[in-house]
Amino acid sequence: MRVLIIGGAGMIGGRLIRQLEADTTLNGEPVDHVISFDVIETPATERLSLSSVTGDLSDPQQCQSLIAHRPDVIFHLAAIVSGEAEADFEKGYRINLDGTRHLLDAIVAAADYCPRVVFTSSIAVFGAPFPGAISDEFHTAPLTSYGTQKAIAELLLNDFSRRQLLDGVGIRLPTICVRPGKPNKAASGFFSNIIREPLAGEEAVLPVSEDVRHWHASPQSAVNFLTHAAGLKTDALGTRRNLTMPGLSVTVGEQIDALRRVAGDNVVARIRRVPDDAIAKMVAGWPRRFAPERALQLGFRGDDSFESIIRQHIECELGGVIR
Amino acid sequence: MRVLIIGGAGMIGGRLIRQLEADTTLNGEPVDHVISFDVIETPATERLSLSSVTGDLSDPQQCQSLIAHRPDVIFHLAAIVSGEAEADFEKGYRINLDGTRHLLDAIVAAADYCPRVVFTSSIAVFGAPFPGAISDEFHTAPLTSYGTQKAIAELLLNDFSRRQLLDGVGIRLPTICVRPGKPNKAASGFFSNIIREPLAGEEAVLPVSEDVRHWHASPQSAVNFLTHAAGLKTDALGTRRNLTMPGLSVTVGEQIDALRRVAGDNVVARIRRVPDDAIAKMVAGWPRRFAPERALQLGFRGDDSFESIIRQHIECELGGVIR
Repeated sequence: MRVLIIGGAGMIGGRLIRQLEADTTLNGEPVDHVISFDVIETPATERLSLSSVTGDLSDPQQCQSLIAHRPDVIFHLAAIVSGEAEADFEKGYRINLDGTRHLLDAIVAAADYCPRVVFTSSIAVFGAPFPGAISDEFHTAPLTSYGTQKAIAELLLNDFSRRQLLDGVGIRLPTICVRPGKPNKAASGFFSNIIREPLAGEEAVLPVSEDVRHWHASPQSAVNFLTHAAGLKTDALGTRRNLTMPGLSVTVGEQIDALRRVAGDNVVARIRRVPDDAIAKMVAGWPRRFAPERALQLGFRGDDSFESIIRQHIECELGGVIR
Repeated sequence: MRVLIIGGAGMIGGRLIRQLEADTTLNGEPVDHVISFDVIETPATERLSLSSVTGDLSDPQQCQSLIAHRPDVIFHLAAIVSGEAEADFEKGYRINLDGTRHLLDAIVAAADYCPRVVFTSSIAVFGAPFPGAISDEFHTAPLTSYGTQKAIAELLLNDFSRRQLLDGVGIRLPTICVRPGKPNKAASGFFSNIIREPLAGEEAVLPVSEDVRHWHASPQSAVNFLTHAAGLKTDALGTRRNLTMPGLSVTVGEQIDALRRVAGDNVVARIRRVPDDAIAKMVAGWPRRFAPERALQLGFRGDDSFESIIRQHIECELGGVIR
C-alpha cells in the first residue's frame, strides 16, 4: 500500500508517521511506501520507506506530480491555521481552498484512479449560536475564513465522492489537547498550555474563566481517527462523507481538576489567571459539545476521560516524568 | 443607483428588469443605469437605461471590467442549471464556482468599494434525508454538483461579508412555479408543466404520484425576494448571510385541485399520468417543506396560495386568457 500524507511534517502528520512506522501496516495492509509532502522537510524514519517532498500545494503541477505516484490512501492534513488564515486572507484561500481543489482535480484527472482521501476538517466549520449539543445535521456557519475554507473543502470532498471521482472521508477534529511543543499564539492555545506547561515545571496563563466548556481530543485519538477513516467501508456513509469526530466536552475547571488528580496541587499552582476579554469573546463563539452519533456508529472512538488525555501526554511527550 | 445583473437575460433576470423598469426605483432610490451581463444579449427596454454585455463569467478580466463600473447593487443570478451542471462536471464548476469566485475577487480588488451583492442560491443546497420541516439551522448536504456549487458560493458570500469586503445576502429560492416558456428537460419541470401546458390548451405529462410534496414560489415572489434583499439592513443578518426564502409547501394533488378551482375540469383533463420511476426517485431526495423563520422575520413574503400563483401566471403570461 502506498500512502501520501499532505502536511506530513506537522504535529498530527508526524504522529501518524510514527504510528505507521510502529504498525508497519494500515488497517491490516502492509505499508510499502509513504510520501510526506509539506513546506518543510519531514524527518527520516528508521523502519519505514519514506520520501520527503517539499513544495507549495497551491501549485497545480505539484499536485499532479504527487498524484502521479497513485497513492492508495491520501491523508490531507495540510492547512494554513486559523489565526494565519484570518490575518492573511489571500494566503488562506490560496492554500486551504485552491490547494485542496488542485489536489482533488489532480486525482480526477488521473485515469482509472479512485483513492481513499482522508481530509482533516475542523469543528471550526461551526459557529455560534449553538444548541446544547451540536447534532450531525447542524449547519456549517463558520465565523472564520479558516472554518469557511474547511467547510468548502468538505463540500468538494462530498460531491467528488458522490460522483465516484475519489473515495473521501472528512473528519472534523476536535481541538487537539494536549498539543505538544511550545505555547503558540493561537487563541485556543491556553487549553493545552494550562496542562503542558505546569507538567514541564513552567508557569501557564489562563485567560478565561473556569466555566468555559470546549470539545477536545488527544493527539493519539486524532491519529486513531485518521487510520480508522482510511479503512472505513464508505458505503455506510452514503452521500454524507463528512463526520464530526467524538471528543470530550469538558470545562476548564474540569481540566484543572483532572490535572490535580494526575499531578497534584503543586503542578496546578503553576496556572496563573490573567483574564483576557478579547480571548474570552472569541472563545464564546466556539462549540462546546457535540452529539457525534454517526461517527460513533461507524466505530470512531475518542478519549475516555481528561485524566487519560493528560496521562497520554506524560507518557508520550515527557517520558513519564512530571517536573 | 447603478445596478449590475449577472444573468440578466434569464427568466428571473428578465422579470427583475421589467420590475425595475416599471418602478424606476429600487427600494426608493432612482435606478440610473442597469448593466445586464449574460451569455446572450439582454433585450432592450423602453424606459430604463440599460447596457447589455455578453461574455464568460469564468474569465477574471470580464469580472473586473464589470466591477469597474462600481455598481451599487449586484444581483448574481447566473448559473449553469442543475441538470447541465450534473451532466458537465467541468462546466458547472467553472461557471458556478470559479465564475462566482472571480466576481467576488474582482469586488475585493476594487478599493473603497463594498457593494450589496444579492446572490440567488437554491433549496438544492439541501439533500435528503430531511426532518418534517427544514429549519434555518439544517445542514447543507447537497445531492448534486449544482447544489454543492451553490452551497460553496454561500460560504464565500458569508465570509467575504463578515470581513466587510462586500455586503452580501444569499437567498435560497424555492422551485419557481409556474415557470413560463416551453417544457424543458429539468427533472423538476413537471411541477410547472402540469399547470402551464393545460392552461395553454396543451397536454402535460405528470411522471410522479399526486402525494409528492414540494416547495414553490412564483416568479413574482422571486423578484420580490431579490428587491427586498437589495434593500435589507444587513446588520440584522449578523454573521449568517444566507436565508431560505418563504415558499408554499403543496402536493401535486393540491396543485391540481387549485388548477381545477381556477380553470375547471376541462383544463385539468389535459394532465396525463405517465409514471416515471427515475424521476420519482430523484424527486424523493428533494426538500418538501421549510420553516424559513429568519426570512419571515426579515420581511420576506412568499405566495398566499397556489391558486394565486396560477392566477399570476394567467395574468402575466397569458394576458388573462385560459385556452
